[in-house]
Amino acid sequence: MTVRIGVIGAGWIGQEHIRRLTETIAGAQVTAVTDIDAERAAQAAKTAGAQVHPDGAALIAADDVDAVLVTSWGPTHAEHVLGAIAAGKPVFCEKPLATTSEDCLKIVEAEQAHGRRLVQVGFMRRFDQGYRQMKDVIASGRIGTPLIVHCAHRNATVPASYTSDMAALDTAVHEIDVLRWLLDDEIVSTQVIAPRATANKHEHLTDPQIMLFETAKGVRIDLEVFVNCRYGYDIQCETVGEEGLVRLPDPAAVGVRTAGAHSTAVLPDWTGRFADAFDTEFREWVANLAAGNEPTGPSAWDGYAATVITGATAEALTSGRIVPTDIPNRPAFYATGGHQ
Amino acid sequence: MTVRIGVIGAGWIGQEHIRRLTETIAGAQVTAVTDIDAERAAQAAKTAGAQVHPDGAALIAADDVDAVLVTSWGPTHAEHVLGAIAAGKPVFCEKPLATTSEDCLKIVEAEQAHGRRLVQVGFMRRFDQGYRQMKDVIASGRIGTPLIVHCAHRNATVPASYTSDMAALDTAVHEIDVLRWLLDDEIVSTQVIAPRATANKHEHLTDPQIMLFETAKGVRIDLEVFVNCRYGYDIQCETVGEEGLVRLPDPAAVGVRTAGAHSTAVLPDWTGRFADAFDTEFREWVANLAAGNEPTGPSAWDGYAATVITGATAEALTSGRIVPTDIPNRPAFYATGGHQ
Amino acid sequence: MTVRIGVIGAGWIGQEHIRRLTETIAGAQVTAVTDIDAERAAQAAKTAGAQVHPDGAALIAADDVDAVLVTSWGPTHAEHVLGAIAAGKPVFCEKPLATTSEDCLKIVEAEQAHGRRLVQVGFMRRFDQGYRQMKDVIASGRIGTPLIVHCAHRNATVPASYTSDMAALDTAVHEIDVLRWLLDDEIVSTQVIAPRATANKHEHLTDPQIMLFETAKGVRIDLEVFVNCRYGYDIQCETVGEEGLVRLPDPAAVGVRTAGAHSTAVLPDWTGRFADAFDTEFREWVANLAAGNEPTGPSAWDGYAATVITGATAEALTSGRIVPTDIPNRPAFYATGGHQ
Amino acid sequence: MTVRIGVIGAGWIGQEHIRRLTETIAGAQVTAVTDIDAERAAQAAKTAGAQVHPDGAALIAADDVDAVLVTSWGPTHAEHVLGAIAAGKPVFCEKPLATTSEDCLKIVEAEQAHGRRLVQVGFMRRFDQGYRQMKDVIASGRIGTPLIVHCAHRNATVPASYTSDMAALDTAVHEIDVLRWLLDDEIVSTQVIAPRATANKHEHLTDPQIMLFETAKGVRIDLEVFVNCRYGYDIQCETVGEEGLVRLPDPAAVGVRTAGAHSTAVLPDWTGRFADAFDTEFREWVANLAAGNEPTGPSAWDGYAATVITGATAEALTSGRIVPTDIPNRPAFYATGGHQ
Repeated sequence: MTVRIGVIGAGWIGQEHIRRLTETIAGAQVTAVTDIDAERAAQAAKTAGAQVHPDGAALIAADDVDAVLVTSWGPTHAEHVLGAIAAGKPVFCEKPLATTSEDCLKIVEAEQAHGRRLVQVGFMRRFDQGYRQMKDVIASGRIGTPLIVHCAHRNATVPASYTSDMAALDTAVHEIDVLRWLLDDEIVSTQVIAPRATANKHEHLTDPQIMLFETAKGVRIDLEVFVNCRYGYDIQCETVGEEGLVRLPDPAAVGVRTAGAHSTAVLPDWTGRFADAFDTEFREWVANLAAGNEPTGPSAWDGYAATVITGATAEALTSGRIVPTDIPNRPAFYATGGHQ
Repeated sequence: MTVRIGVIGAGWIGQEHIRRLTETIAGAQVTAVTDIDAERAAQAAKTAGAQVHPDGAALIAADDVDAVLVTSWGPTHAEHVLGAIAAGKPVFCEKPLATTSEDCLKIVEAEQAHGRRLVQVGFMRRFDQGYRQMKDVIASGRIGTPLIVHCAHRNATVPASYTSDMAALDTAVHEIDVLRWLLDDEIVSTQVIAPRATANKHEHLTDPQIMLFETAKGVRIDLEVFVNCRYGYDIQCETVGEEGLVRLPDPAAVGVRTAGAHSTAVLPDWTGRFADAFDTEFREWVANLAAGNEPTGPSAWDGYAATVITGATAEALTSGRIVPTDIPNRPAFYATGGHQ
Repeated sequence: MTVRIGVIGAGWIGQEHIRRLTETIAGAQVTAVTDIDAERAAQAAKTAGAQVHPDGAALIAADDVDAVLVTSWGPTHAEHVLGAIAAGKPVFCEKPLATTSEDCLKIVEAEQAHGRRLVQVGFMRRFDQGYRQMKDVIASGRIGTPLIVHCAHRNATVPASYTSDMAALDTAVHEIDVLRWLLDDEIVSTQVIAPRATANKHEHLTDPQIMLFETAKGVRIDLEVFVNCRYGYDIQCETVGEEGLVRLPDPAAVGVRTAGAHSTAVLPDWTGRFADAFDTEFREWVANLAAGNEPTGPSAWDGYAATVITGATAEALTSGRIVPTDIPNRPAFYATGGHQ
Repeated sequence: MTVRIGVIGAGWIGQEHIRRLTETIAGAQVTAVTDIDAERAAQAAKTAGAQVHPDGAALIAADDVDAVLVTSWGPTHAEHVLGAIAAGKPVFCEKPLATTSEDCLKIVEAEQAHGRRLVQVGFMRRFDQGYRQMKDVIASGRIGTPLIVHCAHRNATVPASYTSDMAALDTAVHEIDVLRWLLDDEIVSTQVIAPRATANKHEHLTDPQIMLFETAKGVRIDLEVFVNCRYGYDIQCETVGEEGLVRLPDPAAVGVRTAGAHSTAVLPDWTGRFADAFDTEFREWVANLAAGNEPTGPSAWDGYAATVITGATAEALTSGRIVPTDIPNRPAFYATGGHQ
């Protein structure tokens, strides 16, 4: 009944997920680990009581691996996901599904050829209580048809290695996925505006950025991405509909009154903000596997769309122009399940 | 059409009301001032372009005084209010109406003998937007019959001259009046509990205090009075009814996010908290006078009840016992108008 | 000491201001009224105890008129304001200062030729507590240099006579003025995006609209104008700076818990939202007049800028293009005072 | 490495915990179940893949039971807990530890005789994020020494079987435990006040009740228990200290604006409110067991104190008097660990 999982990539996020699957999620066991750094693989495997494999292919092929978790370097994702599909094994791939839309399409095609959904992509926000409540409110019709979404994604700071295109590829990608899901709609064009830049950033960086998206149904989305906002990690989302609006709550925190002010803490980084969402994401993934069901989280098609839209957004930043995404209609194969 | 007002007492609160009547409230003019300190009277009169009178009696008798405002030392209130009633002139008296219940009853009787309401007592909270909204919600039946009220009255600090009985006489008196009005009910007993005392106080003081009131209808009120709370001026009130509750808002203030916290300012003292209520209080008083109507604010009866209840509460602090207030039924004379 | 005011235009807003100057604001008296509708003028004059004049010119010339308040139909504003300047009398003009930028410039030039500020334009938001707190926070440096401002201006509904360009000319004009003042900056370009339209609107209308402004210092402003939002009147503003952000509060209102929800009322329309700001606006205007000072509220230059920017925004809606405002540098004459 | 747990009592709460240990908590396995109702035991055991035992004694003795979870009827708790101690097996007992203080003391003595902590009592609030944040704030010294705590515990409704003493025994017991822990203090006396009763209750019930507690350090606690408040499940707690206060947050929930109101949902019952706390409670318990550590949650001593204090409070309701608790000093054995 326990699902045996092989983990490809034992870096920070890989270790975190191994810990989660071992200590927090019932019904799962990490039985296999591989990493380009053998030492790191050995260490991670030891914690979990798992076996080390020389590479992804060997891990995927292992008898005691029921499902694969891909947390390696982005450019290697496609290879491992395709390998898992070829082996007929369920695979959970951290974002991005693949770094090129061509590779994403290969995965989409391979999965359809296999005939059954195997792939889930690691967009954890769909499992966050606040976004789920927001989706329920929209679905209930209380705020009417959605017309506009205002979002902000703020990080206190980023390392020097963070480049301007990562605002789309690594940061906005979370809003892009969750908004497609919230609105049950597709993003058809993207644009980036650069406000006055903050002085609190590495010189090469365009920060903040304002991204403007349009959906197939005409909804307009504005998203402030500000990765050196200094004051903390802050995620805002407000959907405005024909009859009202719904707004994401701030994380619950005690209120303190001292010295002339009422204050509540703002989280320092994202780890606390989406810890429950990560737990729920893996709990539901494992429960589906254990029950022999297809995954109900973000699909390969969602991973493909995210790669296309983030790429178009990075291009829009460079060109200063509105960039259409030209995403084809979702295949019937992904009509159900892909949108949980 | 302009109402000509004579002010007895030109101390801090008197000066503040003269400024208010001169600069902020339309339709009023301060024409006469008196004070035990002639210099202070002269200065205050000069600002308002008013005449100085040697004493309250002379001021009340002046032809250009349509109405009297009593802001002198508490023990002198009764004399001036009774003088104004004898002269048939409307009189606004800052709290307390009188320092003894006997004097309050004399005023109540004199006013009834006069046959028409002349007296209004300066309980400004009835004019605060928040309390008015709360009264509207209660009146609407949305929360059902009130059962419990939780209150807190916190000041950042008090001077050394502040004594333990002033927690009832000067501080809780505002809640006592506004709750009688909110609930349209009478307080029948009072009790005081002394929690662990704060170290941030003058040695002689019992601070904080928890006051427990019971009303004729059985509503229970708990009121925390904490006059050295350090962090600011903070007024809380929550009425719990059979179907729900209603809570006073904090004053509107911008929210600021910096350095890991979301914060809003807490007011440093009471002046900002009830500035609008004071304006409304005098605007409505002047408008009633100008229209030839009886005052609709707190009546002499309310002033009497407040003096009895605060006195009983001060006694309860000393005795440690539950003290009944034994307030008689409200006379028909005060049945309307006294509760706006 | 009382300032005698002549009111040109006795429609709804004129009557409201007459009431305000008569009943709420100390130190002012409405002595003269004129309106294109003689009946309406007579009625308004009667309430205030004022004299009726046949037209604006006669009213401006009247000896008992110290200052002029223009609340007539927009296209007539320029004529009356220029008339008041020619007569050397202070003039408060409801927005817009004039309906064309050419007329605004004539006023600006006439005032400069006069040599002293006479004109104040009726942008009341600068007198709102929330915006003033926000300006203080920005000025304090707590949030660092402003980079982005997010705004929303929502009305529950508008009449059939409301046209798409009024979203800029009549609605966004308030944000345009207050943001120039908040940021001490000029708007250099404007753009309008039309999201999916609400079904709850008259057919001819583009609603909602998203306006995007850029300032001389590079700040980017996004403003949602949604005049059929149904749920109430709602004004949002959040300024994001290099070190943090500051957000306008919602109006204080009691919280009510009943039937599975905690709720606070949203105002039905703008009257309650800015009632205090209107009071403060007129109180400060009258106080400046009484003291013989120049007005410190929005200047003719601010009125000119607003007309240019709203016109450019209406053009941007039609053209779908980014429209530069080409506002020249502010003349030294308006360097002080114009920005209070 | 997996902890094998035997569950005594397969009623609603037992089934819920079996589900939790099976589906949600990693590292645990329910291997044994017993219940007075054999059918119910069989069904619960089947879900978990566990074995049914005829009674608690047999279950405790089973080789494949590493630790015992007691969720049977309250009066049977003592027998099973003492059985587990006698067998030297860790035991988690849902509240109450025992229904009499005598039985609680027997457990305390048996555990001390055993020489090592085996017992944890099921007070889940200590594991709630909000309370933990509050304890951190108090411990940090930010609000100074605690002086007063204001609490409310409201349920939408209770069944006819709920009696007046259950307000203390079943409802307030949670605040009693969590406040002892929050304040690191003991409750020395208790008193109950009955406000006007709600009409929305079964006739026999005293509802609401206001409980007043005093601690050894002089902190005063007021707790409103209102189990037919109608509007939802609502837990409030505010600790007032010498320098400021800290207040429990409401659960995070999306804000919705429609039809003239901003609203957030209030939870219908307690299940959602403390779901995360239950998870954390069992996760930490299991982690301690797996690591061979003593439990760090509420101790047998805490269970004893809660039984004494709730009993005294039920007595105070009946007698109308202040009832001392006469709890002896905490034995050194419970000095560490008992207060996590």
